[in-house]
Amino acid sequence: MSDRDRLVELNEDFYAAFEAGDLDALEAIWVNGELAESVTCVHPGWPALRGRDEVLRSWAMIMANTTYIQFVLTDVEVEVGTDFAVLTCVENIITADDDDDDENSAQFAGAKGVATNVFRRTPEGWRLWVRHGSPVISSALDDDED
Amino acid sequence: MSDRDRLVELNEDFYAAFEAGDLDALEAIWVNGELAESVTCVHPGWPALRGRDEVLRSWAMIMANTTYIQFVLTDVEVEVGTDFAVLTCVENIITADDDDDDENSAQFAGAKGVATNVFRRTPEGWRLWVRHGSPVISSALDDDED
Repeated sequence: MSDRDRLVELNEDFYAAFEAGDLDALEAIWVNGELAESVTCVHPGWPALRGRDEVLRSWAMIMANTTYIQFVLTDVEVEVGTDFAVLTCVENIITADDDDDDENSAQFAGAKGVATNVFRRTPEGWRLWVRHGSPVISSALDDDED
Repeated sequence: MSDRDRLVELNEDFYAAFEAGDLDALEAIWVNGELAESVTCVHPGWPALRGRDEVLRSWAMIMANTTYIQFVLTDVEVEVGTDFAVLTCVENIITADDDDDDENSAQFAGAKGVATNVFRRTPEGWRLWVRHGSPVISSALDDDED
């Protein structure tokens, strides 16, 4: 399997772990060891969190407060360097707010985000090292000028 | 000068170019050549723009529509790899809206952003390659749990 294919797969594993609320799977994807202190994560609208422990704690909190979330990734682009790789993608997000006990009344909402996920090559394989996610608020760019 | 010092300086040059509306200076900071196609920039709230030409066009538009902007950078962290480096920082932003002709009545506004700037080592020195900026909307993390 090429580095590129492996990275796309690992990136999908990351979102699948979030969807499943599987903290163990998430922990296995983030880099550990000597790079643990420099692990960085920006959740959409948040300041940067630094250090593997703080980042994983934030994910535990987020997953504990997420009833349902599903990602469809588009525009996945991967650039592979010697010992690092940068993957950018659009996150098409579906969430549900089921405060109501009646399952059929769950409120679904759509949102769009953009993520830059930076991976490091380690003796154990590729691992996620820096993640920056942000909400897409507007299309902003005027394509009519093309 | 160490790589780290050079990168902090280059990052400051980037924001200085934006503050000055200096597109030539900005163009010199972004990577060119074989990496030009993979240049990526996420402006706060925007989708990802890809390719040096599209990214620089967006900066020209943004600077043309910016009357006054000033950045104070804090929490600058740099991680240097073999041929790449990742810099994260908090952008403390002051902007002015001086639609009014009276200079003394300019409206100043503060905002906070967070940026992940990825640099590449090139034969000409370090160059900016991928930038992801996003608004900090809330402090989000409950530090009371510490």
